[in-house]
Amino acid sequence: MDKSAKPGPATAQPSMPEQLEFPAAAAASLQPHLPPPQQQQQQQQHDQHDQRAAAAAAAAAGPSRPFVTLTFATSLDASLSLAPGVRTRLSGPGSKAMTHYLRSRHAAILVGVSTLLADDPGLNCRAAGATCQPRPIIIDPHLRWTPRPSDKVLQLCRSGAGLAPFVLTAADAGEPPRQGAEAVLSQHGGKYIRVRAARPAQGSRARFDWTDVLAALAAEGLASVMVEGGAQVINALLSPACHDLVDSVIVTIAPTWLGQGGVVVSPERVHDDRGTPRPAARLSGVSWHPFGEDVVLCGKLGPATLSP
Amino acid sequence: MDKSAKPGPATAQPSMPEQLEFPAAAAASLQPHLPPPQQQQQQQQHDQHDQRAAAAAAAAAGPSRPFVTLTFATSLDASLSLAPGVRTRLSGPGSKAMTHYLRSRHAAILVGVSTLLADDPGLNCRAAGATCQPRPIIIDPHLRWTPRPSDKVLQLCRSGAGLAPFVLTAADAGEPPRQGAEAVLSQHGGKYIRVRAARPAQGSRARFDWTDVLAALAAEGLASVMVEGGAQVINALLSPACHDLVDSVIVTIAPTWLGQGGVVVSPERVHDDRGTPRPAARLSGVSWHPFGEDVVLCGKLGPATLSP
Repeated sequence: MDKSAKPGPATAQPSMPEQLEFPAAAAASLQPHLPPPQQQQQQQQHDQHDQRAAAAAAAAAGPSRPFVTLTFATSLDASLSLAPGVRTRLSGPGSKAMTHYLRSRHAAILVGVSTLLADDPGLNCRAAGATCQPRPIIIDPHLRWTPRPSDKVLQLCRSGAGLAPFVLTAADAGEPPRQGAEAVLSQHGGKYIRVRAARPAQGSRARFDWTDVLAALAAEGLASVMVEGGAQVINALLSPACHDLVDSVIVTIAPTWLGQGGVVVSPERVHDDRGTPRPAARLSGVSWHPFGEDVVLCGKLGPATLSP
Repeated sequence: MDKSAKPGPATAQPSMPEQLEFPAAAAASLQPHLPPPQQQQQQQQHDQHDQRAAAAAAAAAGPSRPFVTLTFATSLDASLSLAPGVRTRLSGPGSKAMTHYLRSRHAAILVGVSTLLADDPGLNCRAAGATCQPRPIIIDPHLRWTPRPSDKVLQLCRSGAGLAPFVLTAADAGEPPRQGAEAVLSQHGGKYIRVRAARPAQGSRARFDWTDVLAALAAEGLASVMVEGGAQVINALLSPACHDLVDSVIVTIAPTWLGQGGVVVSPERVHDDRGTPRPAARLSGVSWHPFGEDVVLCGKLGPATLSP
């Protein structure tokens, strides 16, 4: 379906954005699991000054990757949603305020293109008192998203309530983005960024190496990124090969079972040298924070040893 | 493999059982989710006096079913174990002490036969200060378990550290239990209980209706039962048809991901009138209790509405 054929929405203005208050005590309890505040301020300065110069400076002198926070909400049966493309509200209102608070503490927020296409998300920050917006990053190796002015993320950008996305595409993607799409993106302040992609097997789809993705973000001067989904992105980062790339994991769990057939967070099976399955990942230094009916789990990915 | 062919274990005595201390404050926090203490004492009296008379009295006058607590431990990806038949230690030592405390607060503990065959569990209570043992109940419609003196549950029974199981079998199970098996069970104080079973489709395996299972326990004077697993039993009780049969749910969650292919707790998919999937179950009146690195979630199964 061609969204651009729809009348109206391209010029419709979003209503006055709701401001979400996250309790200061709750925010304080999350601090040990978040990037240092100055990293966020540094990014704000980058936005205010010449972005290109800042990016060049960061590429020359900065760290090879941003601080990475992996965050998502699941049911008790580890589902993000009832089915692919079905947006499912799992957690309570406190969790929504937390998400926007977390966004206010990162220079960028990252989602896979499937999430963008399924949810048409705003990808902005509505935390009360937030002074800058995070940069939306879209993982889209095969250019599945065609940016249109009616997309919510671009509407919010025009109204000053968010930034335009940086779209990471495969360096060898067959066709370049359509000219119109590239123009729409750049008019809003977004852009395409070409990243090397590998094909695990002949004929399979290209996939990014997460080291390359994070290096691309560091080269843009983005000092921290909050990875929000979807399942494919989360499961990849939970695999042992990526544990060293993730600084912090924040999971909200809602006391519900969606039932079999949902979109599940569960990394690929891992085996030991003898072919015996072993746990794929474990959090260390954990803390649990009840928020309303949900719980928020914070920790760091560590070796997946079991309790003695 | 014929376990009885193994030398030794039938006469081996279990070592002195470890006593597990569960902190009083933690125990207090679980009280609202447990059966009233007098139900447990009532069962104790039953054990001490003529069991048959007590059962008859309970069948005549008691409630149609016991208080049902559903309890289990999963990973963050909702797995009970890495693979069927693979015992996987998920939760920390505090959780083990909690399990035994919970057993001390129920007249019976129930598992499916697959769990019994996979784990050879003790099914007794080692809580410090426990004054009586819960009755193990095995759901075994097709008589897959052949009781042998070397089974841990019967070893513990002989040493006075536990009770012998009541085994629920299908009333129309083709063959009766082998005479030797029935004798082994009855010598330890256990027995077979015949329960009506239905076959959902021709040629399919017989299944119990949970109303019948619980009525059979009530008829034995068992005022409370802690249902411990495995996945098939838990998933059946989490389905909407069984929500009214469960009084309390206590889930321990360990901060680990076992990875795809585990034995997962997730009830069957539920659809609304229009065929749209909807959440299968939700807990209400929830409380979250961090214990070491794990969290314990308590609640009651309620209508699976999502947050507004």
